Amino acid sequence: MTPEKRLKALGITLPSPALAIANYVPFVRTGDLLVISGQLALGPDGKISDGHKGKLGVDVFNEAGQEAARICAINVLAQARFALGSLDRVKRCVRLGGFIASAPDFVALAAIMNGASDLVVAVFGEQGRHARTTVGVSSLPLDSAVEVEAMFEVD
Amino acid sequence: MTPEKRLKALGITLPSPALAIANYVPFVRTGDLLVISGQLALGPDGKISDGHKGKLGVDVFNEAGQEAARICAINVLAQARFALGSLDRVKRCVRLGGFIASAPDFVALAAIMNGASDLVVAVFGEQGRHARTTVGVSSLPLDSAVEVEAMFEVD
Amino acid sequence: MTPEKRLKALGITLPSPALAIANYVPFVRTGDLLVISGQLALGPDGKISDGHKGKLGVDVFNEAGQEAARICAINVLAQARFALGSLDRVKRCVRLGGFIASAPDFVALAAIMNGASDLVVAVFGEQGRHARTTVGVSSLPLDSAVEVEAMFEVD
Repeated sequence: MTPEKRLKALGITLPSPALAIANYVPFVRTGDLLVISGQLALGPDGKISDGHKGKLGVDVFNEAGQEAARICAINVLAQARFALGSLDRVKRCVRLGGFIASAPDFVALAAIMNGASDLVVAVFGEQGRHARTTVGVSSLPLDSAVEVEAMFEVD
Repeated sequence: MTPEKRLKALGITLPSPALAIANYVPFVRTGDLLVISGQLALGPDGKISDGHKGKLGVDVFNEAGQEAARICAINVLAQARFALGSLDRVKRCVRLGGFIASAPDFVALAAIMNGASDLVVAVFGEQGRHARTTVGVSSLPLDSAVEVEAMFEVD
Repeated sequence: MTPEKRLKALGITLPSPALAIANYVPFVRTGDLLVISGQLALGPDGKISDGHKGKLGVDVFNEAGQEAARICAINVLAQARFALGSLDRVKRCVRLGGFIASAPDFVALAAIMNGASDLVVAVFGEQGRHARTTVGVSSLPLDSAVEVEAMFEVD
């Protein structure tokens, strides 16, 4: 199965890629690397639902946090497809960077970020297995609970 | 206009590049990539002015935060010029990483980071349009309000 | 002296590389770059000692923080050796990213991260001199006081 077919089998329709909310671009290719800007938990309507805003451990809890991370990953994939024409041109997901807006005592960060990692592995299979850094931060743009950036090796 | 000429037209004199404040170096080149260490809002005198210290939403507000981000970007450019001899050897700004020291309820982070992004685009034009990740963090070295790291594709 | 010999001279035995604690992998190679996932201050027993948990400025202070950063760097080296077979295949440490769990008023972050940087330079010598970004974050996975990610240029 190709990534595009797996995506379809998962029942996921990629949204229109989010526009950068400031003076930058959503992706840059350099050599064989595609660098994707940090993506927020913007839904298909271009807004972050209230359930995906705020801090883990205060406003957002486990399942909602994982869902927010999954939405960020979907937005990463939307940008990658827009950049490449097809996700089938991804050779490897090299790295995901996960930023989780968290109360200082919320440390179950890995489980939240799995919402993003699981989706990427579901779509790309073995080629989706990535290096990852997950940290809890004090705040994120637009009050998103999660932000995910990515680096892909591409065709 | 070349980047060096645009910089001059903007009236910006790059400072002597800041020395690393610890056991590391301000940049490393690998292949066609130039990786710049996180730069703080150090002014031309090598100090962070009181107005660019502390947290966004508590000690520092919008214009001063943007100015801090702009100073970080100027320091990124100073390192890049020192590494390359001339900014005209930059082929593309691939990515900026922006870390904003923020109170948990300060989420207008994208506008702050524009202080850095706008400068990079002003200097490099189309080649300055970069991928970007902006997050709010609990503290930064030397109490800088902003820290900016960068990756360039170079000649 | 090669990196492997220096490591021995330093009296450091690398632990078994930590398994990823979630659905990702500890390293990915793309071209000449080896990207290492964020490593926590897990000791040789696979646990984070109480002295290396919590926030700098609240639960953890200078020497213990530096030791936590050093342990993270040892875990980075363990992953690099596992990926490459030998640290002697490292051509350059390109970048370390240091995330320090910190109280908002703890800003002596560079000194903490030196625990990681000093070790890398001790092991790799001139080739160990790296670009670096250090930030203070609100929380880290498993309540680790420090997390360090890395990028190496490899043979």
